[in-house]
Amino acid sequence: MSLFDGLKNTDMRVKLPVVCFIWELAMIILFGVFIRYNPQADAHYIVNNSNTTYLNEFYFRYPSFQDVHVMIFVGFGFLMTFLQRYSFSAVGFNFLVAAFGIQWALLMQGWFGSLDYSTGKILIGVENLINADFCVASCLIAYGGVLGKTSPVQLMIMTLIGVTLYAVEEYIILTLLNVRDAGGSMVIHIFGAYYGLAISRVLYRPKLNQEKNGSVYHSDVFAMIGTLFLWLFWPSFNSAISNTGDGQHRAMINTYVSLSSSVVTAVAISSLTQKKGKLDMVHIQNATLAGGVAMGTASEMMVSCYGALIVGFCCGIISTLGFVYLTPLLESKLHIQDTCGIHNLHGMPGLIGGIVGAITAAAASEAVYSREGLVSLFNFNGAFANRSASTQGGYQAAGICIALAFGLVGGTVVGFILKLPFWGDAPDENCFEDDVYWEVSLLLTLYILAVL
Amino acid sequence: MSLFDGLKNTDMRVKLPVVCFIWELAMIILFGVFIRYNPQADAHYIVNNSNTTYLNEFYFRYPSFQDVHVMIFVGFGFLMTFLQRYSFSAVGFNFLVAAFGIQWALLMQGWFGSLDYSTGKILIGVENLINADFCVASCLIAYGGVLGKTSPVQLMIMTLIGVTLYAVEEYIILTLLNVRDAGGSMVIHIFGAYYGLAISRVLYRPKLNQEKNGSVYHSDVFAMIGTLFLWLFWPSFNSAISNTGDGQHRAMINTYVSLSSSVVTAVAISSLTQKKGKLDMVHIQNATLAGGVAMGTASEMMVSCYGALIVGFCCGIISTLGFVYLTPLLESKLHIQDTCGIHNLHGMPGLIGGIVGAITAAAASEAVYSREGLVSLFNFNGAFANRSASTQGGYQAAGICIALAFGLVGGTVVGFILKLPFWGDAPDENCFEDDVYWEVSLLLTLYILAVL
Amino acid sequence: MSLFDGLKNTDMRVKLPVVCFIWELAMIILFGVFIRYNPQADAHYIVNNSNTTYLNEFYFRYPSFQDVHVMIFVGFGFLMTFLQRYSFSAVGFNFLVAAFGIQWALLMQGWFGSLDYSTGKILIGVENLINADFCVASCLIAYGGVLGKTSPVQLMIMTLIGVTLYAVEEYIILTLLNVRDAGGSMVIHIFGAYYGLAISRVLYRPKLNQEKNGSVYHSDVFAMIGTLFLWLFWPSFNSAISNTGDGQHRAMINTYVSLSSSVVTAVAISSLTQKKGKLDMVHIQNATLAGGVAMGTASEMMVSCYGALIVGFCCGIISTLGFVYLTPLLESKLHIQDTCGIHNLHGMPGLIGGIVGAITAAAASEAVYSREGLVSLFNFNGAFANRSASTQGGYQAAGICIALAFGLVGGTVVGFILKLPFWGDAPDENCFEDDVYWEVSLLLTLYILAVL
Repeated sequence: MSLFDGLKNTDMRVKLPVVCFIWELAMIILFGVFIRYNPQADAHYIVNNSNTTYLNEFYFRYPSFQDVHVMIFVGFGFLMTFLQRYSFSAVGFNFLVAAFGIQWALLMQGWFGSLDYSTGKILIGVENLINADFCVASCLIAYGGVLGKTSPVQLMIMTLIGVTLYAVEEYIILTLLNVRDAGGSMVIHIFGAYYGLAISRVLYRPKLNQEKNGSVYHSDVFAMIGTLFLWLFWPSFNSAISNTGDGQHRAMINTYVSLSSSVVTAVAISSLTQKKGKLDMVHIQNATLAGGVAMGTASEMMVSCYGALIVGFCCGIISTLGFVYLTPLLESKLHIQDTCGIHNLHGMPGLIGGIVGAITAAAASEAVYSREGLVSLFNFNGAFANRSASTQGGYQAAGICIALAFGLVGGTVVGFILKLPFWGDAPDENCFEDDVYWEVSLLLTLYILAVL
Repeated sequence: MSLFDGLKNTDMRVKLPVVCFIWELAMIILFGVFIRYNPQADAHYIVNNSNTTYLNEFYFRYPSFQDVHVMIFVGFGFLMTFLQRYSFSAVGFNFLVAAFGIQWALLMQGWFGSLDYSTGKILIGVENLINADFCVASCLIAYGGVLGKTSPVQLMIMTLIGVTLYAVEEYIILTLLNVRDAGGSMVIHIFGAYYGLAISRVLYRPKLNQEKNGSVYHSDVFAMIGTLFLWLFWPSFNSAISNTGDGQHRAMINTYVSLSSSVVTAVAISSLTQKKGKLDMVHIQNATLAGGVAMGTASEMMVSCYGALIVGFCCGIISTLGFVYLTPLLESKLHIQDTCGIHNLHGMPGLIGGIVGAITAAAASEAVYSREGLVSLFNFNGAFANRSASTQGGYQAAGICIALAFGLVGGTVVGFILKLPFWGDAPDENCFEDDVYWEVSLLLTLYILAVL
Repeated sequence: MSLFDGLKNTDMRVKLPVVCFIWELAMIILFGVFIRYNPQADAHYIVNNSNTTYLNEFYFRYPSFQDVHVMIFVGFGFLMTFLQRYSFSAVGFNFLVAAFGIQWALLMQGWFGSLDYSTGKILIGVENLINADFCVASCLIAYGGVLGKTSPVQLMIMTLIGVTLYAVEEYIILTLLNVRDAGGSMVIHIFGAYYGLAISRVLYRPKLNQEKNGSVYHSDVFAMIGTLFLWLFWPSFNSAISNTGDGQHRAMINTYVSLSSSVVTAVAISSLTQKKGKLDMVHIQNATLAGGVAMGTASEMMVSCYGALIVGFCCGIISTLGFVYLTPLLESKLHIQDTCGIHNLHGMPGLIGGIVGAITAAAASEAVYSREGLVSLFNFNGAFANRSASTQGGYQAAGICIALAFGLVGGTVVGFILKLPFWGDAPDENCFEDDVYWEVSLLLTLYILAVL
């Protein structure tokens, strides 16, 4: 890195606009060529009039979509405002990256999943929008790993490639292998976390200035806005694309229950591991959410409410312990600087979620689900008509490995791309500092001088 | 109190984790024994396929549930962040208490209301989740009365017993007496407010350090986040468990209308009672919500829009006057230290709401409701088939008394339990101070020194 | 102005309560005389039982209504908290004005649109509530233009007359001319923006103290709460009163797509126009929303996704350029002091939205919409049965002019009313200062002294 340090130029005046304009123009062209409304959103009346009735998919998915949408932009954005002088970048770059990412996701996921082969067009509706938000979530998770250390141009590149990788791994896992992963423990959380951690490893900064890598009082309160909206709407996240009816209903209940027990154990461990038993805001902001991550795969299954409680119970503990003991080790031993602790919130709970899903699927029986319920939930139709529950469990486990591999390999490659010296990332001493990329009013500077 | 002061030890390192773990393990066991999905959330296909159709209750209740959920965690949590140095505790303990409370509420309310007698199991669905949020709301109201003066362990105890009492009084009022109280003016607000006030009375601290019992500029803005989400989603709160169709529709309209007039009169009285007519943020944060509290019982009735306006009009006035004149009196004469002014926001408006409900019910006629409408709204079926509207009015009035009695007696008992010296509450001079239970960064301390 | 300066008295102790009480009492009387529930919200059973079924309009509109409701109170309120010492007024007066405005809007819009001629009553339901929120949005836009320079009494007057004008222009444009404007590019944004700008012009303060007309670090983060909730729920805003089924579905998709491209180009231009390429929070807070404004008219039409992308693309650019180059010119040349830059966010994008809508309507063909789709979308029924698409385009263009005229003329008249010397606005040196109308704790003053 020291070789390049002289080359570092954080001026974004050319780079950022060029990237934004070229990519957005590309989006316009590709949308023009490929994207059309699906019949439920099209004004052209079709025979059975499905577009105008109360059965329009809009009414079954839109409330969940809006909850997910809030999670992506307010939840992730504000969760990352905890740093004392990096709130503009946290919420602002989250906004930029997500807004760009959903466009590219509509295309990538469309090619793999919503293509009308007769016309070659992607037909989109509300479910595509939810999936685009999901896809972007994985890139925002990765952003949490490199928060404070990357330029907006690097984030745009990370997102472009991240969305692309996501669409491919999602296609392999969900479509080719018929793995169930409604809330994305594997495709979103495992992939996103290890993608971000791999990038962070490659971009390791041995002399990183840690002084500003901490919170102040009000920035921690801002971060709680993010935490709470994530926590509240996670039941919608895990149920948004489940089967309508009992599927969505059950997925929501399981997630609600799991999340509630994460809070209790995260608080307990936070108190237990701190001197004088004082709670640490970092744990409350993050580990309370682990139960939602870990129910991502099994939420729509008959995991039972006490099963969901146990999952949340364990993940609240593991995630908090991760913040206390594992994060420092990752930095000192493996040279992974994980700003937001994504390994604790998304990595480990995602792995647990994948495993819980595999076990629950393998244990599924007609006695519990009924034959129709089993077929409907696990999509044992067509090519998968003869798949047994235990086979399904095996494929679920395979999904974990694929998501992990895509994250680690993809992240390593992207890391080396981002290491090139001309993307405008800040030198070590200016990391975690909004002033590098934002006009910050003089008053702030005076305020900081007054305080320090 | 002075006798115990030497014993006060605010170190939570053992107490809090022990309470959290034991209670959460109890939840897992009890959930395992008792809680199952109801048929609408169960994958097992039932004959009429009610689980998979667009008639699944999920679609009628889930958007309202999410609004209520936001109120409980963001609304109540941020409303209490107004204190200058107690925002972590406000939003953090609110989070802990609510997350634990909903689990216990699912069990307690389930035993009283959703028990399948053939199997002995509680069958839960989205409506149970709404009711659990409602139940916890009463405990969070009580938290508002003792904010800044209790340890998290005390709050956990307060919640455990509060939820228990709530489930019993709710069963007596709503089920045994067939009282209507869709938005809980009685069962939630009266109970919660007087439960909290009674506790606060028993825990009276004559030498309480009032210096930190006030706001700073930014903490008041944070509190407005809470106020606004409470205000916005109150129509969902009051309609969430009303009868589907016109019941929910009407409950929402009445609450919206009532709330809008509370804002106008709260502003008017705030200006009128202050020197130079300057508005007081405390009034805007709280009294604007009084119209929602007071429509809790009558919202689903044919109270008419101008009736709702009048209720909001009066409650905006009464609530603001309460903050100006009654709160200081309660402290000086009755030794009730009501940090958030819950008597003004929940106590008095709750009583008014109960009375308005009783009158409206007593005045209900077939001319207005039609026979079918009357039977449907007031559940004049089965054992209550012959009840007249005026009798119903009498039972409604009885509901007020029961809620009040549960709150006052229960709160007094709980108060004496919490007064035991080993729960870790802060000494008088450290009340309203996050630093007692939270790791607070050094920067804050420096900031405070710089400011003061 | 200097003549009146001696008369300026910002004491609201009489004026504000008097206005609030008289107007609220008038609301109660008028509601009592005119407003009743519509059949879908009435307990009285009607023959086809529409009030009790899953077809109740409540289920098709309520989730969108709540999203719009959040935009009005949290979105607009927090967006305006960006000023360093005016956050109480931003969020507090927004609250007051909106809460009063929706009541008056229910009446005004009811007389023009929901009157039951047989009884002379206004029958309200969820759609009226959405429309009332829409109506108030136009007044809140205007508030953005005069933010920091007006007293709450002036705002109440501005709102009373603004709502009245809105109801008339809306009736002319939407009902008499059968213009389509689901998200209100014309009736809301053009009218609101030019209404506010005209008022601001008449109230021009040549010696305005600009020192406090800027942000501090945390106030910019608060403003992002407003921005994000506006951005997230804009798809609901533009689809809330569209035709059920495909109409709402398509309107939502178009708005989502358009907004996403606004973000990318707003960032690009912000970086391009600033020294060293640093981003300006003002642009991110505002110009990112321009794509939502500009899709207000055409969102429900078959504008196609790439068309929506192009609209967002252009408006992100134009809006940001407006902040950089036009706002200073408006002040120096035209003496329009536009605090929030409403001309950039609502004025120009509104005009573009109106034009896009006119072109899209004129280009509508049966090939794309089918005959039934065309009739349904553009309401080519009854008196409009023979209207062609190109004629419709002409009427759409006329709508732009009417909205503009109402805004400019109405705003000028209201401006002169507000210029009367007894409404209690602050002298030039105290503008943008909460202390004029709010009790602000001593700590804040000390804090400011410490900082400056």
